[in-house]
Amino acid sequence: MNRDVIRIPAPRLREQTVRILAAWGFGGDAVEAGADGLAWADLHGVDSHGCAMLPVYERWLGEDRFNRTARPGILRESAVSALVDGDHALGFLPARMGMRLAVEKARAAGIAAVGVCHSNHFGAAGWYAEMAAREGLIGIATTNTVAASVVPTGAREAKFGTNPLAFAAPGAAERPFLLDMATSTVALGKLMAAVYRGDAIPEGWALDPEGRPTTDPALGYKTRLATPLGGTPELSSHKGYGLAAMVEVLSALLTGADSPVVPPATSPRGNVGHFFLALDPGLFGDREAFARRLDAMIGSLRAALRADASVPVLVAGDPEYAQAERRAKEGIALPRDLYAALRTTAQRAAAEWILGVA
Amino acid sequence: MNRDVIRIPAPRLREQTVRILAAWGFGGDAVEAGADGLAWADLHGVDSHGCAMLPVYERWLGEDRFNRTARPGILRESAVSALVDGDHALGFLPARMGMRLAVEKARAAGIAAVGVCHSNHFGAAGWYAEMAAREGLIGIATTNTVAASVVPTGAREAKFGTNPLAFAAPGAAERPFLLDMATSTVALGKLMAAVYRGDAIPEGWALDPEGRPTTDPALGYKTRLATPLGGTPELSSHKGYGLAAMVEVLSALLTGADSPVVPPATSPRGNVGHFFLALDPGLFGDREAFARRLDAMIGSLRAALRADASVPVLVAGDPEYAQAERRAKEGIALPRDLYAALRTTAQRAAAEWILGVA
Repeated sequence: MNRDVIRIPAPRLREQTVRILAAWGFGGDAVEAGADGLAWADLHGVDSHGCAMLPVYERWLGEDRFNRTARPGILRESAVSALVDGDHALGFLPARMGMRLAVEKARAAGIAAVGVCHSNHFGAAGWYAEMAAREGLIGIATTNTVAASVVPTGAREAKFGTNPLAFAAPGAAERPFLLDMATSTVALGKLMAAVYRGDAIPEGWALDPEGRPTTDPALGYKTRLATPLGGTPELSSHKGYGLAAMVEVLSALLTGADSPVVPPATSPRGNVGHFFLALDPGLFGDREAFARRLDAMIGSLRAALRADASVPVLVAGDPEYAQAERRAKEGIALPRDLYAALRTTAQRAAAEWILGVA
Repeated sequence: MNRDVIRIPAPRLREQTVRILAAWGFGGDAVEAGADGLAWADLHGVDSHGCAMLPVYERWLGEDRFNRTARPGILRESAVSALVDGDHALGFLPARMGMRLAVEKARAAGIAAVGVCHSNHFGAAGWYAEMAAREGLIGIATTNTVAASVVPTGAREAKFGTNPLAFAAPGAAERPFLLDMATSTVALGKLMAAVYRGDAIPEGWALDPEGRPTTDPALGYKTRLATPLGGTPELSSHKGYGLAAMVEVLSALLTGADSPVVPPATSPRGNVGHFFLALDPGLFGDREAFARRLDAMIGSLRAALRADASVPVLVAGDPEYAQAERRAKEGIALPRDLYAALRTTAQRAAAEWILGVA
């Protein structure tokens, strides 16, 4: 028995999220999209992007980043593209609209790209990429992020957020290949977790204010100087830095969203940008043959000779799907601190608390 | 004076390449495409993908990988896509055709994706991505590679090649943002160079046959067990591994090309796969405004506070453009060993040798 966590059935946790979002005054469509997106992250083990975001959203509400009655709309459109104005909504609403548009257009035209501006935090990028794969399409989802925390190779100040990139592709018998990665070496949540545990962090996760690698997680977390994927120049951090810039170009420069590297806008309202792409494998050949090749790839990777015989070789998506199966059965284990924070957030929102007593 | 290199004017080196390719019996269009692509790599400092490939191509000719009289053609086509059959040509020919098709279609439709199968080594991925950016479009180019050399996280055998990804975006006054990266931590050429120098390599570049990090470059190079970007599990090598798989999906699984992770074909003929995407920023807004934002990003990154005041913060493309300017003036410095290898290759091809005596 683990006394440090409280287990909540996934549907109940989603319902609690609905009540908090509704109590804040978000419109019904935003509440549903937000609850779905946060629940997906909670279920799939992307804990940094699930209900743990609610206390953060509470703070952002105080900063007037959200338009609670937002009505996202299409600013520009073609047969293969759209630009969605998020109207400063809870990010899940215009982001899901964006990926749904991309999927719909790609079904008709074979490929489509949709940008979203005037949005906010959209949760886990993998949720959107997986949506496309569940429809038989290849899906790509990227977003830029609110605050810069990733330091270009050779610099000592942050210029990009953790700028995630998700890519999903449909299999036949297998679940979709699903890559969902920050372009930083690790997510900021990993620094925070190390601070709580009192552990040193590996050299290559974060920098001190002089731009030198640090093993002190508190320093890295406080100063928000994380490294791009690669970690150090000798391990090719310029590649992670380049990927972060690529995500910024697609998510923000292309959509007109705010960016830490472009002269800032003046409104406090959220202007995060996202980019979605959907691609039909049927453009290039038989869809089923593609799906079978994807299955073969997954099988070949899982069957790779192991460095440690007791540790399986995983494929992108495997850890998330395994978590989702486990959590669907066992419920979602909330750390006691998070449970308490959610209750406080619910109380301040005057939302009914339905997660019991612990 | 550096006695270890022989400087050759770039156009002369290109002309030597033309003579070797022509002497091998490649058709005129393949000779021109190959000479252009190799010359681009030589000029931009991507030395592993320039004329240094000619001795490798000579070996592959002996293995019957190339069809010297290939006529690449379009297998499938839509307004936004094409699948090009490379007919086992020198890779540059169908690959350039692929990116040109993507650019042409994206000019008309806003976005296009082109796959290429039955191809061979296509040189530097950056060459193709930059082609799109020079036309005012965002360009993406990926390829899978002939032999597996990159080990999935947790494994001790290679499952992917170095599977490069290139991304380019057009600026206004600035040259295109140009990211061209192997999804491995470093290219195999860096291991080879360390072997020649007798240097140890950083932990995280390569693995020993048990799947443990090694600092012995000879071991890493001989066994061809390179790491995915990230280098080690604690520095998130699963992300580089996921990117390598993404490139394999796009380049090979989608196009029907051979792949180390899909049951192999039986023909010795080259069946490498490439993927090209071109995207018009004008789908989302004013093209000039996008280009100015891209310039602003580049300026902001170059102006980042430096970790070392004497070392500038670079942007993807900066090192390549700087090399191209320098080499256009000073010529291309061939290491003596490479110069000798080229001469041998030219002699065996019965091609005229026009690079003098050294």
